[in-house]
Formats: sequence, structure tokens, C-alpha cells
Amino acid sequence: MPKKEENQGITIKKTEDFSEWYNEVVIKAELAEHSVLKGFMIIKPRGYAVWEHIQDHLDKKIKKIGVKNSYFPLLIPEKFFRKEAEHAKGFAPELAWVMDEEQREKYALRPTSETIMYDSYANWIRSWRDLPLRLNQWCNVLRWEVKQTKLFLRTREFLWQEGHCVYETEEECNKEALLYLSEYKKLCEELLAVPVLEGKKTEKERFAGAKTTYTIEALMPDGKALQMGTSHNLGQNFAKAFGIKFLGKDEKEYLPWQNSWGVSTRLIGALVMLHSDDNGLVLPPRIAPTQIVIVPIYFDDKEKIIKKANEIKNKLKNYEVELDDRDGYTPGWKYNEWELKGVPLRIEIGPKDIAKKQVVLVRRDNNNKEFVKLAQLDKKVKETLESIQNSLFNKAKKFLDSNIVDAKSWNDFSKQIKNGKFVKTSFCGMPSCEDEIKEKTDGATSRLIPFQQPNKIGKCINCSKEGKFLVYFAKAY
Amino acid sequence: MPKKEENQGITIKKTEDFSEWYNEVVIKAELAEHSVLKGFMIIKPRGYAVWEHIQDHLDKKIKKIGVKNSYFPLLIPEKFFRKEAEHAKGFAPELAWVMDEEQREKYALRPTSETIMYDSYANWIRSWRDLPLRLNQWCNVLRWEVKQTKLFLRTREFLWQEGHCVYETEEECNKEALLYLSEYKKLCEELLAVPVLEGKKTEKERFAGAKTTYTIEALMPDGKALQMGTSHNLGQNFAKAFGIKFLGKDEKEYLPWQNSWGVSTRLIGALVMLHSDDNGLVLPPRIAPTQIVIVPIYFDDKEKIIKKANEIKNKLKNYEVELDDRDGYTPGWKYNEWELKGVPLRIEIGPKDIAKKQVVLVRRDNNNKEFVKLAQLDKKVKETLESIQNSLFNKAKKFLDSNIVDAKSWNDFSKQIKNGKFVKTSFCGMPSCEDEIKEKTDGATSRLIPFQQPNKIGKCINCSKEGKFLVYFAKAY
Repeated sequence: MPKKEENQGITIKKTEDFSEWYNEVVIKAELAEHSVLKGFMIIKPRGYAVWEHIQDHLDKKIKKIGVKNSYFPLLIPEKFFRKEAEHAKGFAPELAWVMDEEQREKYALRPTSETIMYDSYANWIRSWRDLPLRLNQWCNVLRWEVKQTKLFLRTREFLWQEGHCVYETEEECNKEALLYLSEYKKLCEELLAVPVLEGKKTEKERFAGAKTTYTIEALMPDGKALQMGTSHNLGQNFAKAFGIKFLGKDEKEYLPWQNSWGVSTRLIGALVMLHSDDNGLVLPPRIAPTQIVIVPIYFDDKEKIIKKANEIKNKLKNYEVELDDRDGYTPGWKYNEWELKGVPLRIEIGPKDIAKKQVVLVRRDNNNKEFVKLAQLDKKVKETLESIQNSLFNKAKKFLDSNIVDAKSWNDFSKQIKNGKFVKTSFCGMPSCEDEIKEKTDGATSRLIPFQQPNKIGKCINCSKEGKFLVYFAKAY
Repeated sequence: MPKKEENQGITIKKTEDFSEWYNEVVIKAELAEHSVLKGFMIIKPRGYAVWEHIQDHLDKKIKKIGVKNSYFPLLIPEKFFRKEAEHAKGFAPELAWVMDEEQREKYALRPTSETIMYDSYANWIRSWRDLPLRLNQWCNVLRWEVKQTKLFLRTREFLWQEGHCVYETEEECNKEALLYLSEYKKLCEELLAVPVLEGKKTEKERFAGAKTTYTIEALMPDGKALQMGTSHNLGQNFAKAFGIKFLGKDEKEYLPWQNSWGVSTRLIGALVMLHSDDNGLVLPPRIAPTQIVIVPIYFDDKEKIIKKANEIKNKLKNYEVELDDRDGYTPGWKYNEWELKGVPLRIEIGPKDIAKKQVVLVRRDNNNKEFVKLAQLDKKVKETLESIQNSLFNKAKKFLDSNIVDAKSWNDFSKQIKNGKFVKTSFCGMPSCEDEIKEKTDGATSRLIPFQQPNKIGKCINCSKEGKFLVYFAKAY
């Protein structure tokens, strides 16, 4: 029997201390843990399997668009960072450096790869025939965070993909920047059951070196927004800085247009925060590495029950199924364990069930229990998994929608920000005004400018000058 | 039309300057190129696609065995390297270092992850219930090579997988170390068409910190051996150094047994060297990102021909097919281009072929041309691709077999080493004697001790003491 002192369950309630609850869920569900290295995490098999699902899904989608995978060096010469001034400034505080053996040149561990990739692009691109060029890489990146580590959300190293494309025209470039964003939105909503808002970033919040940054943002249960993915229209900024040029069909030389876009292992953090509960991890079936666990209940008839359980497992071979036939653990202990680890659906089977040609189905998301005849199992499993997926999304969508509020006055605005809302308001767009808002609200930032804008914008919520657009503000991770 | 000055083909013959020829093939076939960073490479889409095929194949195989993927930090605290003395000594010359912000601790960029992983293993493993533990990671590693860079074979950063498993018994540990080696052998021979010899390493050549290193070795056309993959029985060395212990079924404490094993992007280098020719890259069909290219031949009847070519492409949807319908390039230019890039099979279709309901099939490996009726195409394509795969393997196997020689005297030995042979000879096993052999032959190293050993071993080829085993020596990459 497992030792008593092993503290199996979640000890902190989600409503009590959200941050500590989250940390406990991630660790006890064995998704990831803190490394002995300050600021670093270890992604454990259950967490990595979620990442593999995300990779599989997205990789197929972007390949269909024409993106190809490649791999560029981890180290970036310091001089590359000097070429695009905004970019250099933006990333300067987060860089970690390696010296070469002669201590003559400094190399940064890549925080993102625009500079090292575009140095090659300048060599590779000659004419319109070479465009569009669409490359992606799946890799590790390093950003030397000084704030406290949060597993999946803020670590000094994380895994991501970064797409980097080059086009003849801005129209094409911008259209595809939005196409990748829409793939991210689908990934979040359809696979992870995480509803998001989409829009573009204000001048202050956009990517260092970009012309426009598009973003998708989710709202976490503690009222903080989380940036889920971004896609940048880089304009011709990097093309100018790195000397990327192409000969057009008219034999004249032009600067191309570029976009870059990325999502990271941070998505896993959002998934966990949003769906999980006081019993541990809750995973949407489409992303769950184990979708169904079968727990056999036996006394002196083990062989017979295990045989039946295996038959059921084989019947469900279109799903990821685990049969927990370990000795020395009670069924109750196993239920708790698989609840903690977020398996969406549990099948219990004991001697009485065999006699009645049935099993018990238990949903992880709402704990509903149902007796199902074996003849109906296939159909019922399919329906139930779909129902779990939809119900998680709908619940999250309801939460998001009910937490979007308008603010017409500063008092209202600052109160709603305090209440952890996504606050929609008119804004002048000035970085200095946004700095003020951040300071006065103890941390609220603009999250996005929605694509759909009203005809008339009111006065800016802070400075009362002419509003430029409606913007969502919130505190954020 | 593409510019004349673009030098399309390979300008160096394989037999003239093997090393330069190889470099040119890799670059012109767009597999990889040198980075501006000394010692680093950029893996381009065509090279990365080969790596993705290798990953797909191997990942499925190891998951079937029960291995799970995970991810550990890139940086390794200096103190971890001090724990296993042999390991530390072996990797010391190749480490690149990062300082933390307070400049108090040094971190190495991982050259391999035994130390950082096993520090966690010591926390995770409590009892026999936790064993076997089988983890793997696909990642980048850094080894600060000072020798000249060779794309895929010797670069300061490369991609690989590293498996790290822990067992209750040495028997299990060793059995699985050999199981992973056999998966590597199958990968090389069945997918890459690269025949290998298998065996174990001598004391001098084994992995720093291992009890036994198993290896598979291939012979390159320039007569140099290439280590293709290794699997290490680490014994209890690291368990001792990192304090990994488990409670057995008898409630007593034991040290577990460990193995680690890896293959890297170096496999791509072997593949290229072995099969390619003076016209460029030759890829075995099972690993080729593009298996078939269709080149339409048209004058004023483009639409009709392209329509037919698309029909053929759709018919061959079980294969990776590219239709090269670019305007402004002659068919001949396209033939050269796809030959250079190693597409195994070319389908040519022009007006005469359509009239005769046929196409022309051209094999990349031997340039054989065949007219094939459309009704026979499916069958013929399947046969031809299989035939190319087998013929590349058989040719390479014949080359390998014909370059294995015995040596009974020192003169014979040193002559055969000079001739670029895999030389089989009796050896005493002493590291100091092996050092001598290396010096006297200007670089020959022991490559492997074959598993099958004769009953009687002669005197050591160098020191004339009692031979311990038959060993293959060669110069190597």
C-alpha cells in the first residue's frame, strides 16, 4: 500500500489562494515542477504530452498554409541586436549572455529569433521568385525574468514555435499575420476549450520592432488577462535593418514585408488555471494525453474482471485509454489519483457490473455518474467526451462574457479593474497616458483593441482627450 | 529565366575532394548551411524535414517500449558536473558557460543531460513502484568543438534525442540498453539505408561515466568510420553520484541501474555522404521529404499538360509528390534542380506521353529511364521506390563488407588503416596501448568490439601482449 504520509490531494482551494492552488495542481498532476535552477522548470511527461498535442495540431495547420520547419542557432551575436533599435531596446533587460572562447564576442541566448533568422533571409532572398518565404521553428527560448517564477507562465526558459514569413506586398503580409492569429484562436477554443478575445495591441504593448501586433487574450479565474498568442506585422522595419531586398517582376529592387508569430508552453498554464478545480487537474478531452481511465474493482475475482476491463480497453482503441490494474491500491485511491491528474472520463467495472453487462461512467468535469450498458458504450463514450469538451468551453465562455464590462468614468474604470474585469473603454492611444493608467491602477495594461470598433469613440478614460479607439484593459500575467 | 551566374550544379567530384564535395552537396541541396556564428549551422527546411522523418519513426518506436518525452533545463549548474568525476572530466573541454546575474554561479549549456536529469530522478524515485522510469527528450545540445566545423557531423550546437532510463536490476538495464541500440540499427538500415556494425566500445572510447557503451558504426566513402548512435549501460555510477535510491519489495534500500542513449542530426550527414553522387543529393525514398517530382513538358499546350500532371499527382497521394509547374524554367533546368535536391523519382509528362497514355519514370539513383503506361503507374511507382531503397542499401552494404579486413601484423594493420579500411584485429584492451596505436597511425581509433567473438584471440596487434578481444579499428569522424 502507498505510504500514508504521501499527501495525495490538493490541499488549497482555488477560491482561497489561486496562485498557490495553481502551483499545487501543476505539481501534483505531474505536469511540471520547479528546477533547482532559479527561474527554470522541468516539463514532466504528462505536461509534455499536452505540448505534443498542441504541436501536432498546429504543425499540421501551418504546413497546410505552406510553412516549413527549420532550425537556427541558439546563440545570437550581440551586434545583431543593435541593428533594429526598438527590438534591441525591448529585449535588452531579458538577455542572458555567453562569451566565446577568446572573450571577444558576446552571444545572447535567443529570446526570439528575428535577428538571427533575418540575417540569413538577407542572403537567401534575391527575387520575387523566392517569396513568400515561410519558415517556422519549434525550439527553446530564454528570457531572463526577474519576477517570481510561475510554472508555464513565467520561466526563464520555455518552449515555443516562432513563425517568420516574408512577402512581396503588405496586403499579403498582413492577411497572413491575421491567418496565423485565427489558427491560434481555433487552437485555443477548439482544442484547449479556452475562449479568447482578439484584436491588436496599442503602441505601448506591441512587440519590440513591430508595426502592428495582433493578439488573442484569455481571462483567468483570478481576473487576470493572459496573452495566449501574438502575430506581428513587422512592416519593413527588419527588412531595412537587415538589408533584405528583392528584385520585383519589373526588375526593380524592393523591400519585402514580414510577419512573425508565436505560441508557447504558456498555453498549458492557461488550460490548467481555467478548467481545473479543488480536486486537481481538469483537461478537455481533445487535449488530454489520457482520455479515459478504466478502474477495475475486484476482490477474489481479479482475473475475470481484468479480462473484461481489457476487452473494454480494446473496444475503445480510438481513444487514449489507460487501464489501472495496479495491485496494492484501493479503487477509491485510484479514483482520487486520476481525478487529480485530470483524466476526463473514468470507467469503473466490478463483478455486479459484469453480471448486468454494464459499466459506470464518471465525468471528471462535473462528477456525474451514469450506468451504461456495454452495447451502448462506444456511442455513450463519444457523446460524453464531446459533452465534456463543449461544457468546459461553454462554462469558460460564460465566465469570460460575464466579466467584460464597460467603463464610462474613471471611478468606474478603476473599480472594475480592481474587481478583476476585462474593462472596455475609450482610450487616446498615447503610451504616456497608458503609463499613467498602469500606475494609477496598480498594474492595469491595455490588452487589445478589438477589430470591431463603434462609429463614435468617447473621450479617453484617463486624460479626457479625444478617444482614438475602444480598448480592453485588465491586469495581466 | 533564372540568372546564368547562378551556379546550379555540383562543381567538385566525390572522388576528387570528398570533404569539399560533401559540403557543396549539403549546401546546394539546401539541407543546411554554415551560420555566421563560428561552428554553428542553420538547418534548412529540406534538411529539417529529414530530421522530422527520423523523429517520427524513432519516437513511435520508443513510445511503444514505454518511454515518455519530457523537457529539462538547457542550463546545468557547474556543481552538478563535479558529482560524477569521469563524466566531468570527459565533457570539461567542450562546455560553454553562462553566468547568472549576480555572477555567483556558472551554468553550462547542456552537452548532454545526465547530471541535471538525475538530480531530479533522486527526488522522484522512492520505491520499486517508480521503476522502470523511462524518459526521453528531443532537444538542442552544445559542445564547444574547436576542430573545423562540418555540417551535421561536427557543429557546436546540434539536435538530438537523449533517453535516460532507470531499472531495478542490471539485467533489465542492460537488456534495454541493447534494445534501444537495436532500434537505432533498424532506423539506420531500414529507413536511411545505411548499414552499420554493432558492438561495444573499448575502455578508452566509452562514454564518460558509463560502465559499458554500445555503438553502431558506419563506414563513409572516404574510408572514415562514423559513430551513428550509442547506448550506455551507466551501471550504478550516476546513482551513487546523485544519490538515487529505491526501496525494494523487501523494504530494503538499493541503488538502481541506469542507461542513456542518443542519436543526433549527425545521421543526416551519414546519409548524404554515403548515397549522394556528383550530381548532388541522393535520398532513400523512405526518408525523402519529396519522394516524387512531376515535371510537365509543354509548349503551347500548358493547360492540358498541367491538368494531366495534377491528375497524376492526385493518383499518387500516398506519396510525397511535388508538381513543378513553375514558368520560366526549362524542363532540363528542372531535372538538374531535382537531381541536385535528391528526389528519388522523377515523372516526366509531355504531349506525346499523353497521346500514348504513358509517362516517363526516371530513377535518381542510377538514372534509369522507363516508359510506363498510366494504368500501370501506381504499381510501377511502388516497385521502383522499393527497388531504389533496396538498391541503395545493398550498394552501401557491399561497400561496407568489402572494406572490412583482417590484420595479423602491424605492417598490414597500419597499411590497411591508411587505405581507409575497417581493420579487424586482436587487441589487449589497454587505454595506453590504444593511445599508442592512435599516435602511430596518425589517428586510428577503436570503433567497436563486435558481440560475436572467436574462441581464441591472438596477440595484441600493437603491444603483442595477450589479446583480450577482436576489435575494429579505423580512422573516424
